[in-house]
Amino acid sequence: DQYRDDVVEAIDGLKVVERPVPSLRRGQVLVRIEAAPCNPSDLLLLQGRYGVIKTLPCVPGWEGAGTVVASGGGWLAGWLKGKRVACGVQDDRDGTWAEFIVTDATMCIPLKRRLPIEQASSMIVNPLTAMGLLDTARRAGHRAAVHTAGASQLGRMLLAMAAESNYPIIHVVRRAAQVELLRSLGAEHVLNSSDESFSDQFQSACSSVNATAAFEAIAGDTSGTVINLMPPGSTAYVYGALSEEACGNIDPIELIFRDKTVTGFYLGKWLQSRGLLGILRATGRVQRMLIDGRIATEVQRVLLLDEVIDGLKQYVSRMTQGKVLFKPHTR
Amino acid sequence: DQYRDDVVEAIDGLKVVERPVPSLRRGQVLVRIEAAPCNPSDLLLLQGRYGVIKTLPCVPGWEGAGTVVASGGGWLAGWLKGKRVACGVQDDRDGTWAEFIVTDATMCIPLKRRLPIEQASSMIVNPLTAMGLLDTARRAGHRAAVHTAGASQLGRMLLAMAAESNYPIIHVVRRAAQVELLRSLGAEHVLNSSDESFSDQFQSACSSVNATAAFEAIAGDTSGTVINLMPPGSTAYVYGALSEEACGNIDPIELIFRDKTVTGFYLGKWLQSRGLLGILRATGRVQRMLIDGRIATEVQRVLLLDEVIDGLKQYVSRMTQGKVLFKPHTR
Repeated sequence: DQYRDDVVEAIDGLKVVERPVPSLRRGQVLVRIEAAPCNPSDLLLLQGRYGVIKTLPCVPGWEGAGTVVASGGGWLAGWLKGKRVACGVQDDRDGTWAEFIVTDATMCIPLKRRLPIEQASSMIVNPLTAMGLLDTARRAGHRAAVHTAGASQLGRMLLAMAAESNYPIIHVVRRAAQVELLRSLGAEHVLNSSDESFSDQFQSACSSVNATAAFEAIAGDTSGTVINLMPPGSTAYVYGALSEEACGNIDPIELIFRDKTVTGFYLGKWLQSRGLLGILRATGRVQRMLIDGRIATEVQRVLLLDEVIDGLKQYVSRMTQGKVLFKPHTR
Repeated sequence: DQYRDDVVEAIDGLKVVERPVPSLRRGQVLVRIEAAPCNPSDLLLLQGRYGVIKTLPCVPGWEGAGTVVASGGGWLAGWLKGKRVACGVQDDRDGTWAEFIVTDATMCIPLKRRLPIEQASSMIVNPLTAMGLLDTARRAGHRAAVHTAGASQLGRMLLAMAAESNYPIIHVVRRAAQVELLRSLGAEHVLNSSDESFSDQFQSACSSVNATAAFEAIAGDTSGTVINLMPPGSTAYVYGALSEEACGNIDPIELIFRDKTVTGFYLGKWLQSRGLLGILRATGRVQRMLIDGRIATEVQRVLLLDEVIDGLKQYVSRMTQGKVLFKPHTR
């Protein structure tokens, strides 16, 4: 389809090149990347459709994990030296799809000993977004929520996190097999949007648990369909755009008379709002859940350096089967 | 066009009938209606497309003005007897397009002596919505706003109210003549959405005054076009749906990364939030502005009882030329 063609074309713009290891400034560290995933936000970046545009040429990759091998000075950077860390990437910096990256020490999360590097490499984007969405809905007073990408990796993490605090989630999926999958994982409310009676089922599920928040990953007309059917006072938090379409089909009558809102959720902004202590608490909890196996990132394939471009293209045709991880130092 | 055909068909569903004057309960008053306008919200109600569905058969008309001729008991209702009032209509009650209506005393606003009944009849829907939008944007911390129906009657009231408190408004209109009209009324920022360079002009106007609120009356793709072009942190308050289309074209990237929001504004909810004192203050200010001529409702035609249906149909073809007012007791 058109979407796949566009992504494949964008992937063809990638090149594996040799570059000098950059020098460090005070407060920075050099991280030897052991593993880094490809997320939907990376594919958007490659197409120039992400919320952040980097100066070209640039290295993609929004998160990864590895070992701090050098410090540029400063107490935090010095303390991190030799430690295993996960790291996020700042807006206009080179990313994690590389053997080494330079990053601010404040962007590194020291890893617990028992956390495997593969799970650590994907511990920011999906798990913290799931946690941030739940936290945002709770703070805004919503007593239950809808998730429109129920069977996604993030959806399964959300299921586990919400279950631990008895927060009801209505999981919306697109195929019968996904209904079975989520039920087998313990989900109580799972709806198949391909069902003929989906609208009725969805409306009555929302009223039964008073779900007034939607975690909306699809965008396009899905945003409207969902918010139109939800109870008065509902808010849709759009955090993804899997359809790659503009949000539409939003009934103005619902906005005006039923006090509904469509807004966005951005992980970076949520992390900022939680402060350092909040971030430490959240990343600590995520690591414990990953270690215990209460949440996990499924990996369909590990890509070595010379497999990256072909491997990414294959991945685009079967994205639901798990993530691909780059291991740039594995030969 | 299709819209006009739909409205005309809805108007054809109206009938002028004789009904007994209803009896009063405690706390209610009987108002002899002297004048009542037709607003866009009335046309939506006739088509069954308003946010409130009334039980049929029903009397339309969301506002009007007249004299309290009987009280059902209670101190407020008793005090109102003999007074001239403007009144709003509760959701499932019969409306103001009638010789008499029964309404709760709390829905009546006593009129200042010098306010003509024609202006009083339209003092709720448009003037209070303009005031409520301004108040809502201010309280949410927005330092300037965009209005997407700049040349409407409400738009001209907004211009006057905002000017009195030095609140910058960017007025968006659709024709060159409307640009001239608003400039002649003292508007500083007026943009014509039909101009080829509208997007650029709009973006730079928004940044120059830091307009982060939009008062959105059109809905459809206009909601998206506007919010997408506005600065980070912007909110669109949809308060009307002149296009009668679903809100669309909203870029999810803008929602997620630029902290944008699309929500609704409903006069009834705003009034409730302001409390009795706030409502008295607001209606007092509106009356003073109407008396001084700082704001005014333009009337294109007065309709007597036997002209109502034909008059409404003619009005639909030239709605920009002013409102029509019913005067049910004028012969």
